[in-house]
Amino acid sequence: MLKLYYMPGTCALASHIALADSGAKYELERVDFAATQQRSPEYLKINPKGRVPVLVTPQGVLTESPAILAYIAQTRPAAALAPFDNPFELARCQAFNSYLCSTIHISHAHRVRGHRWVDEPEAIAAMQRKVPQTMAEGFALIEEALASGPWVLGANYSVCDPYLFTMARWLEGDGVDLATLPRVHDHHKRMAERPSTKRALAEQGS
Amino acid sequence: MLKLYYMPGTCALASHIALADSGAKYELERVDFAATQQRSPEYLKINPKGRVPVLVTPQGVLTESPAILAYIAQTRPAAALAPFDNPFELARCQAFNSYLCSTIHISHAHRVRGHRWVDEPEAIAAMQRKVPQTMAEGFALIEEALASGPWVLGANYSVCDPYLFTMARWLEGDGVDLATLPRVHDHHKRMAERPSTKRALAEQGS
Repeated sequence: MLKLYYMPGTCALASHIALADSGAKYELERVDFAATQQRSPEYLKINPKGRVPVLVTPQGVLTESPAILAYIAQTRPAAALAPFDNPFELARCQAFNSYLCSTIHISHAHRVRGHRWVDEPEAIAAMQRKVPQTMAEGFALIEEALASGPWVLGANYSVCDPYLFTMARWLEGDGVDLATLPRVHDHHKRMAERPSTKRALAEQGS
Repeated sequence: MLKLYYMPGTCALASHIALADSGAKYELERVDFAATQQRSPEYLKINPKGRVPVLVTPQGVLTESPAILAYIAQTRPAAALAPFDNPFELARCQAFNSYLCSTIHISHAHRVRGHRWVDEPEAIAAMQRKVPQTMAEGFALIEEALASGPWVLGANYSVCDPYLFTMARWLEGDGVDLATLPRVHDHHKRMAERPSTKRALAEQGS
C-alpha cells in the first residue's frame, strides 16, 4: 500500500491526482501546516526536508514531486502516465516537470515563503512585488509549449498534466489572470473535468 | 551525434561529465554569457529559456539538467548511470537530482542571479547575505544522504554524482567551507580523480 502525505493548496496535489490516475490503492495523511506539523520531530523523521509531498512505498520513503510522479508512472505501466519506452519523450516529460519544480514553483514560493531566502521584511515585500511578473513570464513559455496539445506532451496525457494543473491553480493568487493564457486555461478546464482530479480534490476537501 | 551547449562554471558541467561517462560521442558549443549570447535571438531559437545546458539529440532539443542526465543514462545503458530497472532506486536518483535543481541550485542563484526575483539592489543584497546559511542548510541534508557512500546512491555511481560535484564547486564562493562537510568533501575528491571529470573540465578549459 502507498501512503501520501499532503497538505491542501500545495504541490502534493499533483502526486495525489497521479495516484488516482494510476489505479493504485493509496492512503492519505494530511500534514497540518497551520500547526507547523511539517517541522515536528515526528514528521522530520519521515522527511528531514520538512515538506510535502512524501510518498511512502513498500521499498521506502520518496520525496520531490518529479520523482514521485515518475515512480507512480513507472510502477503502474498500464495507466500509461509517462513514456518510459521512449528516452527522448521521457526526457521531455521530465524536463517539463523539472521546469515546474525549479522555475515555476520557485517563482510562486517567493510570494508565500520568502523567508527561505531573506530575513528582512522589506526584502520579502520586494520579492512579492515581482511575483506577478515572474509567474507571467514563466507561464508564457508553458503557453507556447501547449501549442500541439491537448496535453502537455501532445496527444497523450501524462504526469506532467496534473503537475501543471496544480501550479496553474496558484496563478490567480500570484497576480496572473488565467484568461491571459488561453491554452493553459483550456488545459485547466480539461483537467478539472477528469474523474481523478475530482476525486483528489474531494479527498483533500478542496 | 549529441551536442551540448554549456558555459563554464554553470550546472552544464554535470551533463558534460555524464556524457564523458556514457561513452557517447558528443560535440560542444560554448555559450558566451559575458556577451549575453544566451539572450541572443539565435540562441533563444534553440532554447527559449535562455539558459544552459541544452542537449541537441537526433530526436530534438532537451533542456533541464535532471532530464538531460536521465536521457544520457537511459540511452547508454551499458554505462549504468541510473537504475532504470528499479523504479524505487530510479526515483531516489531523480529525487536527489530534483533537490539539487530546485533547492541547492536555487539557493546558489540568490547570490549570482538575484535579479530574477527582485528589482531593488537592497533586496538583492539581502538575498546574498543569506546564501551562506541556505547553502549550508541545504548541504547538511546531502551530508546525511552520503552516509552509506561512496556514491550518492550508495555502492553504485550514477548521474547524481557529477551533478553533486558540480554544485559542491560553488560552495566556497557561496561562503561554505567544504571542510565542514567531510562526506561531501570526500565525494568531491573522489569525483575529481575520475577520468570523465578530468576530461570535461579540460574540455571546458576550467
